[in-house]
Amino acid sequence: MAETSEATANIGVVGLAVMGSNLARNLASREGNTVAVYNRSPERTKLLTDEHPEAGFVASEKIEDFVASLTKPRTAIIMVQAGKGTDAVISQLADLFDEGDIIVDGGNALFTDTIRREEAITARGIHFVGTGISGGEEGALKGPSIMPGGSNESYVTLGPILESIAAIAEGEPCVTHVGTGGAGHFVKMIHNGIEYADMQLIAESYDLLTKIGGLSPAGAADVFTEWNSGDLESYLIEITAEVLKQVDAKTGKPFVDIVLDQAGSKGTGVWTVQNALDLGVPVGGIAEAVFARAVSSHPEQREAAQAVITSRPTPVEVGESFSDDVNAALYASKVVAYAQGFDAIIAGAEKYGWEINKGNIAKIWRGGCIIRAQFLNRIVEAYDNNPELKTLLADPYFASAVANGEAAWRRIVSTAALSGIPVPGFSSALSYYDSLASKRLPASLVQAQRDFFGAHTYKRVDREGTFHTLWSGDRSEIESEGSSH
Amino acid sequence: MAETSEATANIGVVGLAVMGSNLARNLASREGNTVAVYNRSPERTKLLTDEHPEAGFVASEKIEDFVASLTKPRTAIIMVQAGKGTDAVISQLADLFDEGDIIVDGGNALFTDTIRREEAITARGIHFVGTGISGGEEGALKGPSIMPGGSNESYVTLGPILESIAAIAEGEPCVTHVGTGGAGHFVKMIHNGIEYADMQLIAESYDLLTKIGGLSPAGAADVFTEWNSGDLESYLIEITAEVLKQVDAKTGKPFVDIVLDQAGSKGTGVWTVQNALDLGVPVGGIAEAVFARAVSSHPEQREAAQAVITSRPTPVEVGESFSDDVNAALYASKVVAYAQGFDAIIAGAEKYGWEINKGNIAKIWRGGCIIRAQFLNRIVEAYDNNPELKTLLADPYFASAVANGEAAWRRIVSTAALSGIPVPGFSSALSYYDSLASKRLPASLVQAQRDFFGAHTYKRVDREGTFHTLWSGDRSEIESEGSSH
Repeated sequence: MAETSEATANIGVVGLAVMGSNLARNLASREGNTVAVYNRSPERTKLLTDEHPEAGFVASEKIEDFVASLTKPRTAIIMVQAGKGTDAVISQLADLFDEGDIIVDGGNALFTDTIRREEAITARGIHFVGTGISGGEEGALKGPSIMPGGSNESYVTLGPILESIAAIAEGEPCVTHVGTGGAGHFVKMIHNGIEYADMQLIAESYDLLTKIGGLSPAGAADVFTEWNSGDLESYLIEITAEVLKQVDAKTGKPFVDIVLDQAGSKGTGVWTVQNALDLGVPVGGIAEAVFARAVSSHPEQREAAQAVITSRPTPVEVGESFSDDVNAALYASKVVAYAQGFDAIIAGAEKYGWEINKGNIAKIWRGGCIIRAQFLNRIVEAYDNNPELKTLLADPYFASAVANGEAAWRRIVSTAALSGIPVPGFSSALSYYDSLASKRLPASLVQAQRDFFGAHTYKRVDREGTFHTLWSGDRSEIESEGSSH
Repeated sequence: MAETSEATANIGVVGLAVMGSNLARNLASREGNTVAVYNRSPERTKLLTDEHPEAGFVASEKIEDFVASLTKPRTAIIMVQAGKGTDAVISQLADLFDEGDIIVDGGNALFTDTIRREEAITARGIHFVGTGISGGEEGALKGPSIMPGGSNESYVTLGPILESIAAIAEGEPCVTHVGTGGAGHFVKMIHNGIEYADMQLIAESYDLLTKIGGLSPAGAADVFTEWNSGDLESYLIEITAEVLKQVDAKTGKPFVDIVLDQAGSKGTGVWTVQNALDLGVPVGGIAEAVFARAVSSHPEQREAAQAVITSRPTPVEVGESFSDDVNAALYASKVVAYAQGFDAIIAGAEKYGWEINKGNIAKIWRGGCIIRAQFLNRIVEAYDNNPELKTLLADPYFASAVANGEAAWRRIVSTAALSGIPVPGFSSALSYYDSLASKRLPASLVQAQRDFFGAHTYKRVDREGTFHTLWSGDRSEIESEGSSH
């Protein structure tokens, strides 16, 4: 491979596994970009440059040469497996970069790692930008949804480059400067959490359509195809139909029936729930999706339970409108999942001091990424209409859309419960909706219990102050100086 | 206060707020104990010794004198607010203690902090024991449930002291050496997580009994009192009846109706869910309980939602057996919550290398602590019968008990969904049960989707190996070298 002594590339990519190679090819395919590439093992670099001479890559075997091949301000996107490897590459680049140069981490880093790294690198005068990139291998090649954090200054250089390769939705590139510091990776994490919820809700819909509705996988595929021309139009609904249509060549059976029913995960769903818990934001839809995958992946528990749970309920008889009911339940539950996800974004922005434009986040998710959907236009509008919206469920459009399907949603949760079909996502979402809608919650009893056993105090509905009842004494009420926490 | 130059106390307590004072008094009241006490501000020490001369406390104003007043091996229990204060006190004691002495942290420390502290202190030849203590202020005074971790050697000295003050259940003290290192605080954390779930399930029961069943708080109190003489007999059911019976003196209204319906939390529920997520253990019952408190504490979201959600369903008409149905749903959901909690204990023990006897944990929770209940005897028996039980739901007794109430449980979740009453705990538990009981889960579809958009591969039901379908190609199946994660 050619070594260069002249700086000719406006952008570099470090790490040339599939995601990195595809992103590099995407960059190279766009007018105005010259792309430097580097990989620790040069064989992989050679593979890429040999297979794609059209890209005009500037390839280097040594990282020093890679850095020398970049025009200033040098801008390099790191595409390596998130973890310790990332720190090593960042450190190598930082040692060779000058003030004002830009290091971009395009891996799936935990945003708190990104915050730590940005602080360390920025102290050296070098920009560090943690960037979420969604869309998988195909998105990286053809146009992903890109969620960069980092300084405003870095975005002046980086923005146009990312805009050149992002997916386009309704004429706009799916990239925005999400916020400073770790905001990009935080929002990417929430994106993935919502993706978990979305997939779980689709899985529950499929389960109901087949086990109660009596459809075959192919029949369910037709239903999903039909749904994909309505309010639920989205990439995940589209590929669900594709998966369900697929026939296994080895057995002639529906493909989905020969796939082992144990779903794996990479950890971003877990991160989302853990961080939402830290932020005090209820994300039941995402949590139940993460747990559903976990239950599926404990075959020893499933077998043990099935050995003793021998009697199962007969599915409830349903009519022709059953699939419409499922559609309504899916739509309403999806609104809840997104409402919870955006709540987590708002709380994260508040805690970490990021200025995040919610509408812009919905916009850049309309293309390129896994959760891309028509539906996101409604979220853009909701936050355009009211940037201070307290919950998506309070937006008039969504409130009305959910209200229209509410009776069906209730029938579905009821029918599933009576029929023995697990619907953790649907029922968690419905309970969340009913919690928000209830004038009084039994949280009053919980708080009273806490006061009883732990003197945790309570507030009253009819006057200011904090109170405690002397439960072990004469049970009179005293005014407390304040909660013990 | 008297200063001592002679070592006469076999146990010391540092930190004399209510919990510490009560624990010191409990210790002093037991045959054979002489209790040294120390508090940073001596006023508090004086208050305790003045008010309780009968205790014969050996009080010191200086920590050096406190240490000098302890017989060897010196044993001191720290009862300060968990956090940085704990580290400061530990460090002070460690500087004055000798090899073989024992520092006990009786606060609600996060178990990973306990692991860190134990490693640091043990390296200096001093024992460090993180100990969960449950039962609140009254438990500390009269007999708590105690969950010590730390070395086996430290338990030789510490065990008899803790046994002397623990609650007694069925003739046995509610204390056991849970396991080494941070095992004690880990198990205490799970205890608290289960407590969250238990309280939420009771709150849902109350909500149903009043909003659908039409009972007054006093009427519901009678139901809980009745339940407390059956399978649900427990401290939390007992105090629920007490709370619901209470009449507000200021207004003459039921007390529970004047308490603001916003439930607070101290963080151990959040820790439980976060750590269960790390361990891959689904704990939906605990998570939904934590989220329910969070929803209740977002009044701005509740108000915004209620401004647009104007139409609410009419509660379903129910008959006289409704409260029996609620009882069955509560019992079954409670079994699920405990099953999930014990799964987390098993997974934690596995990950951190603790030998935890599950039956002994159930035993020491039968008295002193907030979740004490008859029910725990059944868990003791379940693990006695089969120490390798894969899930409590696979135990024949629990399987049969849940099966007996299963139809009622389904009716309750269905009725709540149709009536607009949030039952996140009941419905999450039912979905979990149905997930374990389902021969096939739609996790197959989720895994197939993951293979479609991310080449995450899948396994087949009919042969070994890991596979990928070329979704963007000719859709044939290839054998993969292994999952990309």
